Amino acid sequence: MYEDRIRRPALMNKLMSAAQAAQLFRDGMTVGMSGFTRAGDAKALPAALVERARQTPLHLTLLTGASLGNDSDGLMANAGVVARRMPFQADAALRRKINAGEVMFIDQHLSETAEQLRAGDLKAVDIAVIEAVAITPDGGIIPTMSVGNTANFVQQADKVIVEINLSAPLALEGFHDIYVPGNRPHRSAIPLLTPWQRIGWTSIPVHPDRIAAIVITDSPDSPSNALPPDEETDAIARHVIGFLDGEVKAGRMDPSLRPLQAGIGTIANAVLHGLIDSPFSSMTMYSEVLQDSAIELLDSGQLSMASASSITLSAAMHEKFVRNIENYRERIVLRPQEISNHPEIVRRLGIIALNTALEFDIYGNVNSTHVGGTHMMNGIGGSGDFARNGALSIFVSKSVAKDGAISSVVPFAAHVDHTEHDVDVLVTEWGLADLRGLAPRERAPLIIEHCAHPDYRPQLRAYFEEALLGGGQTPHVLEQALSWHARYKREGSMLVK
Amino acid sequence: MYEDRIRRPALMNKLMSAAQAAQLFRDGMTVGMSGFTRAGDAKALPAALVERARQTPLHLTLLTGASLGNDSDGLMANAGVVARRMPFQADAALRRKINAGEVMFIDQHLSETAEQLRAGDLKAVDIAVIEAVAITPDGGIIPTMSVGNTANFVQQADKVIVEINLSAPLALEGFHDIYVPGNRPHRSAIPLLTPWQRIGWTSIPVHPDRIAAIVITDSPDSPSNALPPDEETDAIARHVIGFLDGEVKAGRMDPSLRPLQAGIGTIANAVLHGLIDSPFSSMTMYSEVLQDSAIELLDSGQLSMASASSITLSAAMHEKFVRNIENYRERIVLRPQEISNHPEIVRRLGIIALNTALEFDIYGNVNSTHVGGTHMMNGIGGSGDFARNGALSIFVSKSVAKDGAISSVVPFAAHVDHTEHDVDVLVTEWGLADLRGLAPRERAPLIIEHCAHPDYRPQLRAYFEEALLGGGQTPHVLEQALSWHARYKREGSMLVK
Repeated sequence: MYEDRIRRPALMNKLMSAAQAAQLFRDGMTVGMSGFTRAGDAKALPAALVERARQTPLHLTLLTGASLGNDSDGLMANAGVVARRMPFQADAALRRKINAGEVMFIDQHLSETAEQLRAGDLKAVDIAVIEAVAITPDGGIIPTMSVGNTANFVQQADKVIVEINLSAPLALEGFHDIYVPGNRPHRSAIPLLTPWQRIGWTSIPVHPDRIAAIVITDSPDSPSNALPPDEETDAIARHVIGFLDGEVKAGRMDPSLRPLQAGIGTIANAVLHGLIDSPFSSMTMYSEVLQDSAIELLDSGQLSMASASSITLSAAMHEKFVRNIENYRERIVLRPQEISNHPEIVRRLGIIALNTALEFDIYGNVNSTHVGGTHMMNGIGGSGDFARNGALSIFVSKSVAKDGAISSVVPFAAHVDHTEHDVDVLVTEWGLADLRGLAPRERAPLIIEHCAHPDYRPQLRAYFEEALLGGGQTPHVLEQALSWHARYKREGSMLVK
Repeated sequence: MYEDRIRRPALMNKLMSAAQAAQLFRDGMTVGMSGFTRAGDAKALPAALVERARQTPLHLTLLTGASLGNDSDGLMANAGVVARRMPFQADAALRRKINAGEVMFIDQHLSETAEQLRAGDLKAVDIAVIEAVAITPDGGIIPTMSVGNTANFVQQADKVIVEINLSAPLALEGFHDIYVPGNRPHRSAIPLLTPWQRIGWTSIPVHPDRIAAIVITDSPDSPSNALPPDEETDAIARHVIGFLDGEVKAGRMDPSLRPLQAGIGTIANAVLHGLIDSPFSSMTMYSEVLQDSAIELLDSGQLSMASASSITLSAAMHEKFVRNIENYRERIVLRPQEISNHPEIVRRLGIIALNTALEFDIYGNVNSTHVGGTHMMNGIGGSGDFARNGALSIFVSKSVAKDGAISSVVPFAAHVDHTEHDVDVLVTEWGLADLRGLAPRERAPLIIEHCAHPDYRPQLRAYFEEALLGGGQTPHVLEQALSWHARYKREGSMLVK
């Protein structure tokens, strides 16, 4: 039984229930779990830990790759199991706890968590909980639909709990490329020169003695919750494609573009979807997550290959992916997020970074994380890794939210995740502002006239004109700079009646 | 005559006056000049261009490494010669023009300008104006006290004007290491694994036909304008050294620390100066500029070697440096700023980044550039290159400015250059806040109690307490968030009477 999944017979005696495995946890421990954008997360232990916390107090610091599926983050947060959380989340219940100050959330660049663990800047991981396809004869752990920080957690943890997920196809073996940089200061260059290169192992090496428990599960990843494209995301896609086409025509890149990164979520997925009708071919992706659109582009042949740290698909696309999995193994590489998002590689490859903004201001500062400047949405994720170090940094957003009550273009971003130094191009359904080589005073009219919703343009123009009276590199009327957000809170709309 | 300086005889016929060389310039051109933090700037052409502009209109886009000396930036700005300027400046007259909106200033990460030129994101350089020690027989240009973006400008320019500075010692030959990354996407790893490694040439290769003019000069670099250490900078140095000592004792690094970067200016210079009385040894620097303190540490033996893109010294230290120049050639490497500040190298080496903040907020967002949120001081320089990609990002500031009328610790940074994601440690003369692994709500009390001036602590506590009532990951009272800056403008002090 399970011989194809647990290929080292001596490990069979580590088989136990999730409830038994949950007994290994102690209050105050730091736990590293697999899972990245709902893909490859542990399915059994989160619920078992919630049960376990009914016996004796259990407050954990929980690290993951990125967001978990199966409402695990919310269930654990509501049970008080998660006291500290990093580096990313996207769960409504956990979000409430974070914004109430009941869970401490450390919002990190996704490439940095592994580095900070290795350097000892963060408390070491006590237990790693890892979803796997199988364990190899020499103890290698084959991950499922994501790699995330899993290799780093396994490297550091005293105890490793492996969840073997029978629903994950054995054919996933060979998708992964596990490379972990050495300790600083004596570190080599990362020998990755192209998106498709394989530089590591197909499984995560671990001494079998450190495998403390093996738990069998059989439930699939939560499907992607990206919404289908709509009129506005189609318009955004057209603007982005028109811009990239202009770059090709100007001779700055050839029709294979540069390796593409696209953030998680509806808009980035829609823009990539739009590339199916584009003039580009032989494209590559070097991203952190592959959504439905990436599979569509692989199928259409326009995308030659795709590298990422996870695959997060709708239920229908997942079924198709599994059915044709042999077609993808040579064209998809799954890497640790430290490598998929690494500054060294992102800069070397000259990546085109496409990420979603919650809001941006008239000078090009971007808020990716904080609703109303104060309340956490999901986290910065990999957007900073790519926007800072990539060759072209594009941020997309719909021009308004809440039926027009909120303008995504504001005088002053109420929280800044990406500064004007790291933002090249801004796009909404109304148009695109190419900010390269422009001073703040030149950026503002472009952003207002090309990106803002027409209803908000008069207010933005009036702000900018008044700000200019005070002078400066980045003119502002500080008394009014955040007044739009205050007005929304007070009156229910940023629009001046 | 000049045979030791112009070693390719055929180039002798390119000798001309600066006034003659200035005739090569046309209105609207993009010009790349050598010069980085007052070191190695062209001495004759700036003044000649000012004269030249009296004949026919001359409005240039001026790119440099960083700031120029000799009031060149101000003279050219006042004459209207500089219409656009990037990526950094530190001149009072130019600053006035920038803040008046008369010069468009593009404030860039110092590692990115060369990359953007190469990618065609910026208009190509028409003429390069380069200070040199000498020209080699095969046409190689040996830079003087800085490298900056010089190699990139030379690579791209149609015409190269070389200023041979007779006051620059011939013994500078051998200090430089010129390496320029290839075009993307087919780029190799940068083969630099240690701060001391040499990976390039000792001069900048250029086809002799592209040398359009050679001008002889004889005046030295402007001396550094860093102020001597004072009581407050001494206290800041003590806090930083105490923190690093704690890191060593905790086993996170050995007493040689990690390669150090220190920004330009008085406080960073003072902190490095303080390292002379520290328990650390065999240290290295991998920085963008070496100030007096670096030479002192090389002399004391605590610093094994130093890598940077420029050397900016006081007059007395410069004299000492030249007198003992043979002692330094094996221990100092001068690199292009693209390499000294490169994300790939900064991350690989695990640099400790030490930069100066103008202000920071209670959550750890840092303003490095904008006085009062609107008016440009100097520019972001390399602080972003190092803070984002380094292993430890430390920002230092005095707790107050203008005799206490301005608090450097504010509720909300009026301009954000470095986000909470990129700031590990904050230091003022009052103390140090170690923010690693902390959520914003945990950061605020630390920053207020450890870093703020005691006079401002009650106001900051009151703000934070009121903000907490509104909840959120990063609590704020948006109506008051920027009120401190407005109060200063209105009443002359941020302090509530």
